Amino acid sequence: MVVNYPNGQPFHKVARPGNQQIYARPSQSNRGMHLEDDINAANRYYLALGQAVIHKKPTPIQIVHVDYPARAAAKITEAYFRQASTTDYNGVYQGYYLDFDAKETNNQRSFPLKNIHEHQVAHLKAVSDQAGLAMFLIRFNRLRETYLVDAKLIFKYWNAQQHDRKSIPYSAIKEYGIRIKANLQLALPYLDAVDQLIKLKDTKENC
Amino acid sequence: MVVNYPNGQPFHKVARPGNQQIYARPSQSNRGMHLEDDINAANRYYLALGQAVIHKKPTPIQIVHVDYPARAAAKITEAYFRQASTTDYNGVYQGYYLDFDAKETNNQRSFPLKNIHEHQVAHLKAVSDQAGLAMFLIRFNRLRETYLVDAKLIFKYWNAQQHDRKSIPYSAIKEYGIRIKANLQLALPYLDAVDQLIKLKDTKENC
Repeated sequence: MVVNYPNGQPFHKVARPGNQQIYARPSQSNRGMHLEDDINAANRYYLALGQAVIHKKPTPIQIVHVDYPARAAAKITEAYFRQASTTDYNGVYQGYYLDFDAKETNNQRSFPLKNIHEHQVAHLKAVSDQAGLAMFLIRFNRLRETYLVDAKLIFKYWNAQQHDRKSIPYSAIKEYGIRIKANLQLALPYLDAVDQLIKLKDTKENC
Repeated sequence: MVVNYPNGQPFHKVARPGNQQIYARPSQSNRGMHLEDDINAANRYYLALGQAVIHKKPTPIQIVHVDYPARAAAKITEAYFRQASTTDYNGVYQGYYLDFDAKETNNQRSFPLKNIHEHQVAHLKAVSDQAGLAMFLIRFNRLRETYLVDAKLIFKYWNAQQHDRKSIPYSAIKEYGIRIKANLQLALPYLDAVDQLIKLKDTKENC
């Protein structure tokens, strides 16, 4: 069950070994995980209700050595993190292919492009070319606002950054993004914003 | 030593830090990788030509301990394989969401259902309910034949296995699957079969 504070802010679970779960109040230090937690909770909810099938991709790991102890699970004893070649989330919703990454910033006036990696832009461009829904979920931590942003807005600023600003103004995200507000079930019911994005795209195509 | 992932798929890439990668030559013992290699090659080709964006998902790993040596990459020193909750491959092709798993058998007369896991069936059922293309790529190693099979055929046999046979006859896969034959560029140009599957589905819907 998803538990929220009365103001809509989510309760955050701190997991400890041995299945004990202690509920802790969000702090500055682990704020970076909050957006991901909200997305994962939404994905579990949507999956359970048969509304969408969207998963976070596992972190790619290069395995070098594995031990096989008798009567115990295989243990990886040497491995390294690899660079992902895609975004973190993808899946299917009512026939639409969805693909997005989650980003947070403590800035209040703009979203710095350094939070985005070249391979993420390249991947979302390819997705967009295949008529998939390529997006970012961007959270302004201090403003407590989260937006679904069509990746095309990001491409525009990304491509211009050599001779222009290296961030996207908050005002542009506010104007062209779709704000996601908590509802009774979820801290981040982002499919509501996806519905709006689909409608906007259909309207454009029909004009 | 033969090293396998928990799902029985062999692990035969020998990797070392510093971007050196040594690929072991496939032998009889790790035949299980061939189909995967063919799919990965096709995916690279389709991506490079802008024809589709389909990736293999990383193996999910539970990381327990990481060392951070000075001036060197973070080294994972304790980790364990986790059970995946999805299939291995997904992506987007001309607006269609594609999701599939790759399976091989040395049987010649049937495909044993024990090669398929409950979570894969559940995931592909959910994908199918969201109007995604849920499929299996099935290779009969000794016949040197590979088929694209709509997951719905698998569901039928899967659901009946309690009171019926525990495998899918080769004849059924030959009749309802779409055979994938090598072309000049690729050992497994599976999007040709996907095109046929899409046409078949469109025809059914229009009747």
